[in-house]
Amino acid sequence: MSIEFSKYQGLGNDFILIDNRSSHTPLVSPEQAIKMCDRHFGIGADGVIFVLPGTANTDYTMRIFNSDGSEPQMCGNGIRCLARFIAHLEGGETLGKTYQIDTLAGVISPRLEAQGQVKVDMGTPYLLAKEIPTTLGNSNDKVINHSLEVAGQTWLVTCVSMGNPHCITFVKDVWGIDLPTLGPQFEHHPGFPERTNTEFIEVVRRDYVKMRVWERGAGITLACGTGACASVVAGVLTNQCDRYCIVELPGGNLTIEWSEMDNRIYMTGPAELVFTGIYNL
Amino acid sequence: MSIEFSKYQGLGNDFILIDNRSSHTPLVSPEQAIKMCDRHFGIGADGVIFVLPGTANTDYTMRIFNSDGSEPQMCGNGIRCLARFIAHLEGGETLGKTYQIDTLAGVISPRLEAQGQVKVDMGTPYLLAKEIPTTLGNSNDKVINHSLEVAGQTWLVTCVSMGNPHCITFVKDVWGIDLPTLGPQFEHHPGFPERTNTEFIEVVRRDYVKMRVWERGAGITLACGTGACASVVAGVLTNQCDRYCIVELPGGNLTIEWSEMDNRIYMTGPAELVFTGIYNL
Repeated sequence: MSIEFSKYQGLGNDFILIDNRSSHTPLVSPEQAIKMCDRHFGIGADGVIFVLPGTANTDYTMRIFNSDGSEPQMCGNGIRCLARFIAHLEGGETLGKTYQIDTLAGVISPRLEAQGQVKVDMGTPYLLAKEIPTTLGNSNDKVINHSLEVAGQTWLVTCVSMGNPHCITFVKDVWGIDLPTLGPQFEHHPGFPERTNTEFIEVVRRDYVKMRVWERGAGITLACGTGACASVVAGVLTNQCDRYCIVELPGGNLTIEWSEMDNRIYMTGPAELVFTGIYNL
Repeated sequence: MSIEFSKYQGLGNDFILIDNRSSHTPLVSPEQAIKMCDRHFGIGADGVIFVLPGTANTDYTMRIFNSDGSEPQMCGNGIRCLARFIAHLEGGETLGKTYQIDTLAGVISPRLEAQGQVKVDMGTPYLLAKEIPTTLGNSNDKVINHSLEVAGQTWLVTCVSMGNPHCITFVKDVWGIDLPTLGPQFEHHPGFPERTNTEFIEVVRRDYVKMRVWERGAGITLACGTGACASVVAGVLTNQCDRYCIVELPGGNLTIEWSEMDNRIYMTGPAELVFTGIYNL
């Protein structure tokens, strides 16, 4: 059996998109997804994303199988790709169009912006130590510029949860950081009972920062959407960044806006069709 | 401009195949090939292979751009993929069909075998120290079970050139070898003035061996066709293998035959269509 697919990428995070509107069951099994995602023997991707029919209140349902066959609740880079894929399936892009997408993390509403960008409401940040979770400081306090011993040095870290924990450190030169060495030591520091994602941030201007990330369980990646959001929150909390700030990641740029009105964080970034294809399952 | 392509793989070595029969110039530039080969922002591949018109004595011409934009003379895994792609372009496979292919390394004649296998004449081995080249032993002698000091141990190595140098060591347990540590030390050992590819071989039976390879300039790879050929030659020279021998590599199996009749080495291995697609250049 052969299946049509489209390959999209957002900041180098790449996905196989499947038109699954004819069925409420993914057309590809987790085992088949693992094969399809293999970068030498398959199509190669970070995951397979399915566009299924929506529910009463939503336009479509999104499901994802990761390259290891697991199913994440949601994916910031993935839902941007999904929004543009849906526009393609519907016959073209309408700027400003917002889709209501049912995901395992609730309803997400990506919006088509100019120049192939997609804006996504990433929700509200959690700032208390117990919410992150971290044992740094008092459990009901925010963790801002808190000292942390890692690799024989003292770092000033700020902690933010976007549903997942982030530990942010501001540095002079983000490319001077030995991320392969420091990343795992931050991730597994006893101050983070559920481990942590780790971001190093270089503030270029109040509205422009450079970021490198060590993702919990994944290591160095080209981009981390929740990490970019958390970093701008940390920048605002430490009075180094504006609430509207561009984050430069190794995979490209994200625009982050932490709204004063509703306390929510809006992330705008690219998603691009790379190629279309037919694969034999 | 959009371009049709087919993605093939042989032992996990994967290529984008382009039907270039309408022109003597590749339809894709080296710069475009680099983008297409990118595994996150492009299609993802080890190289782009073009099927161009043949010369007076050949059916077709093969050209390859590597993922870094360079142009190799030939590629054993690549030409198997090319043979099956040509069969597809011509409307189907005829078992036993042999194509005459003009390459930068001369005319190569891949032959379609049963079960998606392709047989390729890999030429004759070079066995004298000066031909390999290596400074082990006398320059006009073969290098068989020669002692070599690497990483504080003495190894018995056999050296074979298939146009590129190989240093083969037979071991009890090929997966017990610390290849990331040993590979670079073999490669850069002063006994190999042009550096060397390094193979560790576990003889399971006289007609079946397991191989792990450290490729010169590339490190650990899933498969190395010339390395498999050289290893069987080394196995015959040390009286551990038959001239007809299966080599199990991390990416799959190759069947190697060192012909007594013509001293040539014939390599038979798989090549598979993974998917077809359309890419926007």
